[in-house]
Order: sequence, then structure tokens, then C-alpha cells
Amino acid sequence: MELTSHLQWNPVLADPTGRRQAKPRSTGKTMVIDKGLGLNAFEDLLHTSGEHMDLIKIGFGTSPLYPQPLLKRKIEMAHSFGITVYPGGTFLEVAIAQQAIDAFFDMITNLGFTGVEVSDGTIEVRRSLRSELIRRGLEEGLEVLTEYGKKGWGSTIELEELIETVTLDAELGAQLVTIEARESGVGVGIFDENGNCRDEELEQVLQSVPKPQLLLWEAPLKQQQVHLLRTLGPDVHLGNIGSQDIISLEALRRGLRSDTLSFGARKD
Amino acid sequence: MELTSHLQWNPVLADPTGRRQAKPRSTGKTMVIDKGLGLNAFEDLLHTSGEHMDLIKIGFGTSPLYPQPLLKRKIEMAHSFGITVYPGGTFLEVAIAQQAIDAFFDMITNLGFTGVEVSDGTIEVRRSLRSELIRRGLEEGLEVLTEYGKKGWGSTIELEELIETVTLDAELGAQLVTIEARESGVGVGIFDENGNCRDEELEQVLQSVPKPQLLLWEAPLKQQQVHLLRTLGPDVHLGNIGSQDIISLEALRRGLRSDTLSFGARKD
Amino acid sequence: MELTSHLQWNPVLADPTGRRQAKPRSTGKTMVIDKGLGLNAFEDLLHTSGEHMDLIKIGFGTSPLYPQPLLKRKIEMAHSFGITVYPGGTFLEVAIAQQAIDAFFDMITNLGFTGVEVSDGTIEVRRSLRSELIRRGLEEGLEVLTEYGKKGWGSTIELEELIETVTLDAELGAQLVTIEARESGVGVGIFDENGNCRDEELEQVLQSVPKPQLLLWEAPLKQQQVHLLRTLGPDVHLGNIGSQDIISLEALRRGLRSDTLSFGARKD
Repeated sequence: MELTSHLQWNPVLADPTGRRQAKPRSTGKTMVIDKGLGLNAFEDLLHTSGEHMDLIKIGFGTSPLYPQPLLKRKIEMAHSFGITVYPGGTFLEVAIAQQAIDAFFDMITNLGFTGVEVSDGTIEVRRSLRSELIRRGLEEGLEVLTEYGKKGWGSTIELEELIETVTLDAELGAQLVTIEARESGVGVGIFDENGNCRDEELEQVLQSVPKPQLLLWEAPLKQQQVHLLRTLGPDVHLGNIGSQDIISLEALRRGLRSDTLSFGARKD
Repeated sequence: MELTSHLQWNPVLADPTGRRQAKPRSTGKTMVIDKGLGLNAFEDLLHTSGEHMDLIKIGFGTSPLYPQPLLKRKIEMAHSFGITVYPGGTFLEVAIAQQAIDAFFDMITNLGFTGVEVSDGTIEVRRSLRSELIRRGLEEGLEVLTEYGKKGWGSTIELEELIETVTLDAELGAQLVTIEARESGVGVGIFDENGNCRDEELEQVLQSVPKPQLLLWEAPLKQQQVHLLRTLGPDVHLGNIGSQDIISLEALRRGLRSDTLSFGARKD
Repeated sequence: MELTSHLQWNPVLADPTGRRQAKPRSTGKTMVIDKGLGLNAFEDLLHTSGEHMDLIKIGFGTSPLYPQPLLKRKIEMAHSFGITVYPGGTFLEVAIAQQAIDAFFDMITNLGFTGVEVSDGTIEVRRSLRSELIRRGLEEGLEVLTEYGKKGWGSTIELEELIETVTLDAELGAQLVTIEARESGVGVGIFDENGNCRDEELEQVLQSVPKPQLLLWEAPLKQQQVHLLRTLGPDVHLGNIGSQDIISLEALRRGLRSDTLSFGARKD
């Protein structure tokens, strides 16, 4: 599409790091949380940033609050830009609580969703059910993402549990394991009550988890994005990025913003 | 309109509480504060959330800052979705201060506004003038909303005054009495300097006010919406909701978000 | 354009201060920071607020993250509303660090940018190079804005340095000198770690700088806009205003919001 061509940019100015992968990419994936964009805003997001996003999550249980044809159209549009679209894990948790798992999968496949998130952020989900849901998602032809972590205030990461979760989920076929930080990024997972990263915990996770490249870190606040990019490198997977912050994050990844200007290769 | 049909959703997944009223509704009204949306964003808001909104306030004195044909078009669009549209009370207070009350009513009726807000958040308005303005609004064919509370930092609720205001305003024909919390929600009315709710005060209000179902609580912050929904129930009227938060609030009302998942009927 | 006509408003209600200049204006300029708006949102911004904006900054190094035809279109649209458009100074700093200054000027003139910002917020830029870049911008037919201040946390204003910078930049032809406050407005320049203004420093700046009317104050937070408008008057130049806050700021300038209602001429 003419309007969305990126071809003509001078590579030194467009990516001073010289390392940003084009899509489809295996590193540095960006996941957007969509809390209710309409078609005009969604078109804007795709046209400006289609190249900068890999995954779009239709946040928590908002999916059935859209007019159905409108949501279908959004999913089609995202699909045409090579972006995986899936409902927030809370929506599947609602379906579990309502004993409506079949209705859930019918609904999301009819809508055209290309992914599903399996989580236990709010309710308890037995390991056996979790495994079954991962398999079910794959059988339905969906990309499966799982999530680790509780949404409650003050929740933390239990290392043994995380290792087991990542190991089993990946064996079953999950593509990424998201580390919960909610939409707020405060007082949850690796982030303390001020939204600052607990670095020792982060370090422990990275040293213990079998495949850290499977982890997708929810990092809604700019300070968190900067910190994780500086600590884990510009190719870390980041999620729960607000739709208005996608271009800003891409600028951070490429060394095009003050906080990460040093990522750019020096020409001295 | 095909695009905005909600008909096909599975009711258990779309509303686990099983109690959300369809529009026009008498409980659980949602009022949006619009701080300057253009036509594309306004269309998005109506198409995604027309069913989730009951009132749109064109915030404070922003009305005359739009090109006039554009504002007229917004009002028509909102009207076609069964939504009451009115200018923020501050605009009428400006007109009072400028001795331009007739010009104000001419302007808003010409524009097609379907409601008016009578407030004294910034200036002093005598009770007799307040009553006159309520009557004038009704004579002009407008839905009248009134507001209780001062906008100044650290303002609080005076119980006797509130009771008198609600009683008299309702007798005169006001449909709802809004409880001031500004756009910030901090250090004003029932919210303290951190935006937390003063629960004893809230309790006193509910026990004293003749018709608490007339109260529309301004609650711009998510923590405030969650707190009031949990304390007063999912059917409380909430206002000063940001246009980007309407779907999130609707998810909270229906038990489709972690914070209120327990609202959903259990199937055990 | 019919849709964007402001002609019919009652002047007492549309501008109670009676002093707001129409565009092109010499006082009270407003600069927007654009962090990635798509065409629908950009059209909304221009149609609602074309009259309220003087300058649009395509924030930091985001310019080359757009599809090129889309960015060109944005620039054309802004130009047609009489608004100066320029890339954030960080982008030129990237070009300096990458030894790609010629490529930078080729790129921005090809895109149709009508202004350029010369800054040293992140890297060191010798005075001689700064002067050269100002001259180069003017030679390319661009409006030149410069910026004073470092982006690092806890940066402050060095009075002697600021005086020299304003004096020399203005002599060379810079139209405005922006005072750095980043997009956050916290812990930078005249704003302390809570985003509050250091009033003594502000006072010193105003008393020392040769032409204070050349200063464009970055003030992203509402509290900062209110404070500077009250302290320096409604005609102060303000910048780094979020695109969603333009109409709110214009309401503040004209006394159409509680915080500045007293700006309106009294009719007693």
C-alpha cells in the first residue's frame, strides 16, 4: 500500500542501532493493549505503526462490548497487517467461571481471532485445565500465548512456579509467556508499588527460566520500557503498551529518543 | 445500523451479571466528559460505545472553541444515538459572570444541545437564581442536570447544603444531581488528596440524601470507579469518564474485568 | 472551509478576556507535541483546533518511523492550516551523532517540514556548530526554533548560559527559544521532581533574559499550564502540549475553565 511504505528512509537516520528486525520477527516483539479503539483510530494505528506491532490484545473482557460486525472488522484489519489478535486472558477466565468454555471458543473463532491467551490472573485454574486450554487453542488453529502472574495488588513472582509454568506451557506449544503487570504497571509482578522494577528479582528470573526469549514483559509505563530496554537490550519483547505509545516505544528501541540515544552505533 | 448491532452476543459472556439494563435505562447511567474530540474520534466513540453511554458533557467552557458547524454535527450525532448532550456547567457560570444568560440559552438551543447543567463550582450563585435557571432550562425544552460542589482544592461536602440542594433541585425538575470531582478526581468532594474515597462521608451522604438514585458521581479515575461500583453496586451512576475509558468502565459494570469479576453470577 | 468556521460565536462567550489574538499571532503561541497521530486523528486535531495551534512538533526521533507518504500528508495538512511543523530536536541530535547532518536536512526539506529545532538536550553541541545549524536551517528556508536545557533527570537552568544562548540564537535568526521540560514535565528545567514550578528561578530568568517574549515554555502538565498562565499572563507561549489537551489549554487562556475564570473581564 502506497500510503504505508517505509522504503525510502535513510537507514542511518531511521534505525541508528542497525539491528531492528523487520516483520515477521523473532526478537523485539511489541504487544499493544487495545481498550476500545473505534475503526478510525484502529486504522490510524495500523497505518502509522503496522510495522512496529506484532500482537494486539483486545483488553480483558472488552470483546463482547463491541458491536459484533465492528469487532470482526478490526480483527480482519489487524490480520491484514500480519498482526496476531487475541482477547485478554480475563475473558477466558470469565468463560471458565461461567462454565462457558465451548461458547468462548465458538465465539472467538467465529470472530476471526488468530490467538488466545490462557491465564489465571484472577481465578484459580488447575494445571490440568490450563494444559487442556492450551491444547484446545492449538486445535482451533490459534496461536497460544500464556500468562504468568496474579493481578492482585502486591502480587509477586514465585520462581519455582514460574519455571514450571514456562517449561510446561512451552512444551505444549505456547509461543510466548507473558509476565503480568496489568494495565497500570504498579504493585504487581516485578514492579513495586511505585512502578519501579525489582532488579534482583528480574535477575533471578533471567538466570532461572529455561528460555528467557519466550518471555513477553508487560511494561505499560515509559520508565518501565526504558528500564527493560536498557537492562535486557532493545530486542526484549514488551507488552501492554498503550496504543498511543507504540511509535514512542519504537523510537526507544531504535535509539531515536533521549533515553536510549546511546543505543545508536557511534561514528567517532 | 448493521455496523453497531449488539444482537448476536452470547448473554452469559457479554454480561455475566445478567442485570445490565439496555438503553434508555434508569440505573447505571454513564456520563462522558468530552474535552475536544473531532468528528472521527466522536464517530468512533458512538459506534463502539453508543450503547454504553447515556450522557455526554462538552467539558467546561470548550463549546465555543469549536468551529460551530462541527459542534452542531457532534450534537446531532450523539442525539441520534439517544444520548443527552450538554455543555459543562462552567460555561453557564461564565455566562452568569458576563451577564449573558440570554445569549447562552440562545446559543445552546441553536446548537441543538439537549441538556443543560446548572452549577456553582467556581462562582457564587444565589439559590433564587439557581432555581430560575433550572426553570429556564426546562422551558427551553432541555433536560436539566444540576451539580453540587466547589471545584477549589480541598473542597468538601456540606451535608445540610447537599440535602437542601438535592431536594429543591429535584422538586424543580432536575433529572440528576452531579457530585463534583472535577476532571482530576483529586482533593475535591468525597475524594481526598490522593484520590481515595472518604468512605464515612460517602456513607453519611447515602443515609441522609432523600433520593440517592438521583446522584451522579463524578469518578474520573479507575480506582474511584472500582471503589464506587463495589461499594454502591454496579448500577450506580458515574460521570466525568474519559472518552477512552467508556468500554473499560462497561467491562467493570458487567464483571468483565479482574477488579469486578466477582459481580458475575457463580455457576457452581 | 464551512466545517471549520468560527465566525458566528458570541464574542463575550467565546472569549471573556477579549484579548486573544487571531492567527497568525505574536503572543500566546501554542506548540503541540505529536507522538504519532494517524491521519484521522490529525484531521480531527486540525479541524477542531487549527485556530488554537501555532506549531506542531513531530516528537523526538519519531519522524522516520512513519510511512513516508503518510508523514508528508500530515505536514501538508498542517501547513494548509498555517501551522509550522518541525521534527523534535532529538532527531537532529541523532543526525549529529551519526554524522548525517546533510542527510537530515535533505530528508526534512523533501518531506516539506517548515521548521527545524536546534537543541542539545542529550548530546553536547559546540556553540560554533549550533550557530552553523541555525544558519543552515535559515538557508534551507526553514523557520528555526532553538531549545535550551538538558533532558537528564534533575537538570536545571544555568542563568548565564541561558542568557548567552537566547542572545546569540536570536541574533542569528531563531524565532523562539524553547525551555526544555520534556514530555513528562518532571524533574527538569524550572520544574521540580513533583512537576511544581521553581518560582524564584522563573523570576530570575524573566528579569535576566533580554527578550522574554522569545521564550516558549514546555509545560506538558495542566498544573504547569495553569501556573504559567497565572504568573506570566494568558499570552505566554506554551509548548509540549498533548494533542488531546489543546482545546483545554485554549479554554484556560480565554478564562473558560474554573482555574482561570477570573481572566474574564468583570461586568459588575
